[in-house]
Amino acid sequence: MTGPRYPALIESLPETVPFVGPEVQERARGKKFRARLGANESVFGPSPFAVAAMQDEAAEIWKYADPSHAELKDALAVSLGCGPQNIVLGEGIDGLLGYTVRLLVAPGDAVVTSDGAYPTFNYHVAGYGGVLHKVPYRDDAEDLGALFAKAAEVDAKLVYLANPDNPMGSWHSGHAIEKALAHLPEGCVLALDEAYVEFAPHGAIPEIDIEDDRVIRFRTFSKGYGMAGARVGYAFGNARFIKAFDKIRNHFSMNRVAYAGALAALQDQDWLEEVQQLVAEAKAGIGRIAEANGLTPLPSATNFVAVDCGRDGAFARRVLAALAEEGVFVRMPFVAPQDRCIRISAGRAEDLAVLAEALPKALAAARG
Amino acid sequence: MTGPRYPALIESLPETVPFVGPEVQERARGKKFRARLGANESVFGPSPFAVAAMQDEAAEIWKYADPSHAELKDALAVSLGCGPQNIVLGEGIDGLLGYTVRLLVAPGDAVVTSDGAYPTFNYHVAGYGGVLHKVPYRDDAEDLGALFAKAAEVDAKLVYLANPDNPMGSWHSGHAIEKALAHLPEGCVLALDEAYVEFAPHGAIPEIDIEDDRVIRFRTFSKGYGMAGARVGYAFGNARFIKAFDKIRNHFSMNRVAYAGALAALQDQDWLEEVQQLVAEAKAGIGRIAEANGLTPLPSATNFVAVDCGRDGAFARRVLAALAEEGVFVRMPFVAPQDRCIRISAGRAEDLAVLAEALPKALAAARG
Repeated sequence: MTGPRYPALIESLPETVPFVGPEVQERARGKKFRARLGANESVFGPSPFAVAAMQDEAAEIWKYADPSHAELKDALAVSLGCGPQNIVLGEGIDGLLGYTVRLLVAPGDAVVTSDGAYPTFNYHVAGYGGVLHKVPYRDDAEDLGALFAKAAEVDAKLVYLANPDNPMGSWHSGHAIEKALAHLPEGCVLALDEAYVEFAPHGAIPEIDIEDDRVIRFRTFSKGYGMAGARVGYAFGNARFIKAFDKIRNHFSMNRVAYAGALAALQDQDWLEEVQQLVAEAKAGIGRIAEANGLTPLPSATNFVAVDCGRDGAFARRVLAALAEEGVFVRMPFVAPQDRCIRISAGRAEDLAVLAEALPKALAAARG
Repeated sequence: MTGPRYPALIESLPETVPFVGPEVQERARGKKFRARLGANESVFGPSPFAVAAMQDEAAEIWKYADPSHAELKDALAVSLGCGPQNIVLGEGIDGLLGYTVRLLVAPGDAVVTSDGAYPTFNYHVAGYGGVLHKVPYRDDAEDLGALFAKAAEVDAKLVYLANPDNPMGSWHSGHAIEKALAHLPEGCVLALDEAYVEFAPHGAIPEIDIEDDRVIRFRTFSKGYGMAGARVGYAFGNARFIKAFDKIRNHFSMNRVAYAGALAALQDQDWLEEVQQLVAEAKAGIGRIAEANGLTPLPSATNFVAVDCGRDGAFARRVLAALAEEGVFVRMPFVAPQDRCIRISAGRAEDLAVLAEALPKALAAARG
């Protein structure tokens, strides 16, 4: 029996999981986390109107969602100031990044990202046989100049930039990105991941002509809108490029309840503002807890804080493990020197109380 | 400006939509359908327990679903009599078919299906550059012998079979499939799509060793469980083959509310039995309406009836268009000679009343 015959590319891929979910860790530990602050989810939840819309729609789940996503694209078009033909919806930014890589990257094609940036992007590049080139962070931020210079050097078809950045929380001004775009080489597309844009300060959003086919931007209902479990992301940009997603996307991948929730969430901008305020307060709280323990919170334009533990990656990993022992789920950057940090998502007062209690113990355990 | 540089395979693909959703037609018509009987959705809906579970989970949508899907795989493993390592969950069978094609088919590889079988499978094969070979239906059923003979002839890596069949509603006995498997060539995988299995008569399910790596089977919560809009499908088979999905799948694609709903739906087998009864009655009703109009309902092991309109595809298309004019959404097979039929999903009494009123008018319009 020969069994399934995998193409060489598939044979070469590891059976990776880009992120292990907290539930897997909870199963292994035999108990639940007391504070879930590791996945940059919004513990403040979605708009109550979105929850109500989802509850109303639950009984309608027997119908497929509209695969053209017309109503939600119309609503997003108004808020983005573009046309519905400039928008494609998908299974979170993760799904859309996969489609983007598939649209552009053939085996052997060069792609550029930062060393330590979003691993799921790298997963997709590997999955389609792309050759990934990484440039280091600079002062805990993605290095615009180095990214685009590397893209030119290796003739990249695609370059990835998250602004604001995950996992460090740093950001570039929109103006800096606009200026840097002059150095994006011809034939290279910038995938601009703006998952955390709702938490960014004014001025962090570049002004880019919607029909500029050098850039495709990604946003999501997972972070600011508090609907990570819904899997509703969107990409927007040049209409011809956006239309190309219809060649390969899973047209019927959208959950109908999530779709109704996203529509309602988008209408409730008051809730978003409230969440922005709560996140700002929570980040200040995380900062105070970090400093009270002799650690350094880094500035953040996201819904999390990268906390510099002051030593190396091995030490931060011990802190992380000890926090898990104390019932606190957090994650950390994968790559040095960013891996001197742990990454703590904004939490409610009760979550931060658990953190405040657990962190000194975790540090003692990590040091001892 | 060169713009995005697409690989040749992507350049070659049309911007297809395998199925146009009824909402798109409703937008174009400027009014809603009165009866939605075209997408083989279950108008009887999901278990009330599943609806309640989804409503309860809506406020928890801020959390990502567990990407290992451990709890739902455990529950499915019990019902399938296999291990959780034999199961992978995904974004409907559509998503899982895409992953399966990607796992096996490199550009130029041969794949076999029936001419007129599920178009979304063909969409994925084209999307990964596979070369699709089609064999005709035989007596309105997929032709097991011809499929496997063609697979041997073209050295196919993958062959598709839906049992029961969509769009015709026909089926093979499990025993016939088991016997035919002896002729599946070495190194060829059978993708056995059992989306409609909950409606099939006893004896339609083949007994295949779960670790037999020549076969991968697909089932869904979309049809019998009435959750098409949830996008929860699963594939099961050889553990090593199943594990390979971890190389490429979108690990965080599952909607958390859908996941909770699927878990609850699986526990309510009484509801499934009730739906099976309602579907059987509805199919009988569709048969009576067809016969009252001089048409021939074909036997069906699914939740729809293919109704033979007695003439050619052009005529059936006119009937379809006229039914849409009357507010009835139905679809039809794409390929001759199956396209002499229209395909009507099981409906409630009120849906069938609309059909009974609309069909004579539609036939008159199509004839006149």
